Amino acid sequence: MRMYEIIEKKRDGIPLSFEELQFFINGYCCGDIPDYQASALLMAIFLNGLNEKETSDLTILMANSGDKVDLSSIPGIKVDKHSTGGVGDKTTLVVGPIVAACGVPVAKMSGRGLGHTGGTIDKLESIPGFKTSLSIEEFLSNVKEIGISIAGQTGNLAPADKKIYALRDVTATVNNISLIASSIMSKKLASGADSIVLDVKTGSGAFMKTVEDSLHLARIMVDIGERLGKKTYAVITDMDVPLGNSVGNSLEVIEAIDTLKGKGPYDLENLCLILSARMLEKAGKGNYEECMRMAKNAIDDGSALKKFRDLIEKQSGNPLVIEDYTLFGKARFVFEYRAKNDGFIEAIKTDSLGIASMILGAGRETKESQIDYTAGITLQKKTCDRVSKDEVIAILYTDNQESINKAIEVLNCAVKITASAPVLRPLILASVDSGSINV
Amino acid sequence: MRMYEIIEKKRDGIPLSFEELQFFINGYCCGDIPDYQASALLMAIFLNGLNEKETSDLTILMANSGDKVDLSSIPGIKVDKHSTGGVGDKTTLVVGPIVAACGVPVAKMSGRGLGHTGGTIDKLESIPGFKTSLSIEEFLSNVKEIGISIAGQTGNLAPADKKIYALRDVTATVNNISLIASSIMSKKLASGADSIVLDVKTGSGAFMKTVEDSLHLARIMVDIGERLGKKTYAVITDMDVPLGNSVGNSLEVIEAIDTLKGKGPYDLENLCLILSARMLEKAGKGNYEECMRMAKNAIDDGSALKKFRDLIEKQSGNPLVIEDYTLFGKARFVFEYRAKNDGFIEAIKTDSLGIASMILGAGRETKESQIDYTAGITLQKKTCDRVSKDEVIAILYTDNQESINKAIEVLNCAVKITASAPVLRPLILASVDSGSINV
Repeated sequence: MRMYEIIEKKRDGIPLSFEELQFFINGYCCGDIPDYQASALLMAIFLNGLNEKETSDLTILMANSGDKVDLSSIPGIKVDKHSTGGVGDKTTLVVGPIVAACGVPVAKMSGRGLGHTGGTIDKLESIPGFKTSLSIEEFLSNVKEIGISIAGQTGNLAPADKKIYALRDVTATVNNISLIASSIMSKKLASGADSIVLDVKTGSGAFMKTVEDSLHLARIMVDIGERLGKKTYAVITDMDVPLGNSVGNSLEVIEAIDTLKGKGPYDLENLCLILSARMLEKAGKGNYEECMRMAKNAIDDGSALKKFRDLIEKQSGNPLVIEDYTLFGKARFVFEYRAKNDGFIEAIKTDSLGIASMILGAGRETKESQIDYTAGITLQKKTCDRVSKDEVIAILYTDNQESINKAIEVLNCAVKITASAPVLRPLILASVDSGSINV
Repeated sequence: MRMYEIIEKKRDGIPLSFEELQFFINGYCCGDIPDYQASALLMAIFLNGLNEKETSDLTILMANSGDKVDLSSIPGIKVDKHSTGGVGDKTTLVVGPIVAACGVPVAKMSGRGLGHTGGTIDKLESIPGFKTSLSIEEFLSNVKEIGISIAGQTGNLAPADKKIYALRDVTATVNNISLIASSIMSKKLASGADSIVLDVKTGSGAFMKTVEDSLHLARIMVDIGERLGKKTYAVITDMDVPLGNSVGNSLEVIEAIDTLKGKGPYDLENLCLILSARMLEKAGKGNYEECMRMAKNAIDDGSALKKFRDLIEKQSGNPLVIEDYTLFGKARFVFEYRAKNDGFIEAIKTDSLGIASMILGAGRETKESQIDYTAGITLQKKTCDRVSKDEVIAILYTDNQESINKAIEVLNCAVKITASAPVLRPLILASVDSGSINV
C-alpha cells in the first residue's frame, strides 16, 4: 500500500477502506507519512467528503491511536456529555453535579478555550486552588468516592486527532463536517464512556452556522456512536444568543453556582435540565419525564449544589466560593456599556461577544496567551429586550484598561437595536436519537 | 497576506489574484511557505481548477522564478518546439536540423526521460562523445555559428516549477490540465523563444488520454502564450500508436538519421515535416504551403542531414555515426517477438511498449536509474498490419538477459491480434492556433 494511491483515490472521489485509513493514521502518527502528503489527503477529504463508514472508521482509528481511559472499575453506565463549543456555555459545571447527585457517575475530561470560545478547564481553574491536572488513578478514585471528577485531557488521548487537527488548523481543512465529527467522537470514545449526549451549538457564535449543518453533524456523530455500540443522543441548540448572561471564567462559575442554587438564568437552567435528563435517561434511570423530575429535584433539594461543593473540595479548590463570590477576586476596571438609542435588542452577535470577552483577557488569542480569570462581560439585556437610550446593556470587567476601548469597538458592531420587537428562535432547535430526527 | 487565506479561497472555488499567486510562488521558493501548505493548495487547485487568467499568472510567476535564457543576441525570430511526451518521439532530432537548415535559429533546451517516456537529451547522449551539458555562452555561440544547439536545461530554469512539480509528483496532483500547461509553458517562456509550436500527444502512451483533454490542454497553452505575447500553435497528434518503428535511445537516433536521409517511416517523416513547416511559418518564412516545400526540400537536398552532422561535431560527438550505425555499439542480447496467431494487429499499447523498452534498459524507472543506450525495441509490424502466426512483430535489444522475459510479459498484454482489419485514426487529430481550433 502506498500513501500516493490513497491520496489519488480520495482525490477521485473513491471511498477509502478501513485498511487504507489505518495505513494513513498509523503512518502519519509514527512519522512515516510526511505532513505534505497528509495535507493533500485532508484537502481531498475536505472537498470530496467521507461517507458514513469512512467517518466511523477514521474515528475508531484515531480513538485507538493512544491511551484509552478504562472506566470499567466504576460501577454503572457511564454517560459523557460534549458541547461543540460556544460563548457563555457553562453547562458542564451545572450538568455534572446534577447527574452525579442523581447517582450516575460523572468521569469527565474537558478541554481549554481557544479564540472566542471558552473551555471548562479554564473556568474551573478560576476557583482558587482548583486542580484540573489529575493522574488517571486520582481521577478514577475521585469518581468512585464522590461520584464526580472533571479533569484536563491526558496528553496521549487520541494523539492522531491532535496531530491531524494541528495540520488542519494551518491548511484550511478544519470546517468539514466529517472531520469535525470524527475529531470529537474519537476523543469521546477514548474517554471510555458507555453513552454520549451531544450538544451541537448552532448560530453566529458556533462552528456550525445553520441548523441544516448542525443536524448533519449531529446525525454523523450519532451514527458513529451507534456503529461503535455507544448509545448517542444529540440536541441542536441555539448559539445566536449567548447561553446565560455571563461570559468569562469566574463570571461563568458564579452563574453556574447561581443555577445550582435555583436562581440561574432561565435559558441556562432549561438547557442544563434537558441535558441532565437525557444523560440520566441514557444511564437507565427511567424515561425522559422521570429523569427530568429527578434533575429538577436535584436542584430543588440542594443535592446538586452539594455535589459541586464536594467536587471543588476533592480537587483542592476553596469551597467557600459557593457562598462568598468575592473569593474569586475582582477585576480592577469595570465599564458599563450603554444603549445608543431607544428600541429593542435585535441581536448581540455571539461570536463578537466572545471576541470582546477574549480581548478583555478572558480568552486566549493563541495557545500561549495567559488568561485573566476575573475578566469578561455580563449582559444586563439580551436579544428581544426593550432598552432606553443610555440604559446599561452590558458590564465589562478587565485588569487591562487599554483593552476596554477595543472591546467597545467590537461591541458597537455586535449590538443591534431595532424599532420593533424581533422574534426569538427557541433554544432547543432539534434533536437526533439513534438516527431519528426530531425538529 | 496569509497562505492560510489563499488556501481557503481556492478551497472555496474563488479565483486567486496575481498578488496571491505571487505570494505563494515567492514564499514557497524561498522556504517561507512549508510543503504541507503548498500541497493543500495544490490539491484545492487540482479539484477546483484555475481559470485562464490564474493559469497564465502562475506560468509567468514560475517562468520569472529563476534564470531566463536571453536569446536577443541571436538575430531573427526564435521558435521553440515542445512535445508533451510520448513513446518513440524523436521529432526534435529531425525537426531541429530541418528548421536550422532553412535558416531559422534553433536554440533548444531539452529534458531527460522518466518512466515510459524518453527524453531528447538521453537520445543525443547515445551518440559517442556527444556533450549535452553546455554553458549558456557555448549554447548561444553554437547557435550563432551553425544555427543550432540542443542542450540540457540549466539548473535554475523555472526553479519554482521544479519544486512544485516534485511536490505534485508525491501528492497525486500531477494530472491537472492547468498545472500541466503552466509547468510546460513556464519552461518555454524562461527558454526565451519568440514563438512556440506545441505537439500535444494523445492516447494510451501519452499524459492526455482523450482528444478532448488534449484540445483543452492545447487551448490553455496557446491562450497562455498569446496572453504573454508569444505566437503559439499546437497540434494534437496520435499516441495510441508509437511514432516511427523504434523505441530506445540509439535506435531512435538511427531512425531520425534515416528520416533526415529521406528513408524514414512515413508517420515520423510526416509529423516532422508538419512541425517544421509550422515553426518556419511562425518564424515568418512564408505561408504554410511555402514552408512545407522548404522543409521537404531540406531533406531532399541533404542540407538537414548536413545540419545534424554539424550539430554532432559541434557538441563533440562522432559524426561518423551518420554513415556507420555500428559506431553506436550493439546490444548483447537480441530477441525476436513473434505473433501468437494469424490476423491483423489491432493495437500495440503504446505505454506498455514504453514500459517494455524501459525494462530492457532504455529508460529510467527512477531518476537515479542508469540508461543502456543500445537497449530498446524495433517494431516490424504496427497497428493495422496483417501478420501470420510466428511472424516477427518486434525485435528486443538489451544487455540484460534477465529483463527479456519481463519485457515479453508486458508485450503479451500490449499486443492484440484480431481477425478483421481495424481502422487507424489519423496521426494529426486537430490543431489550435491563437485560439481557433481546427479539428
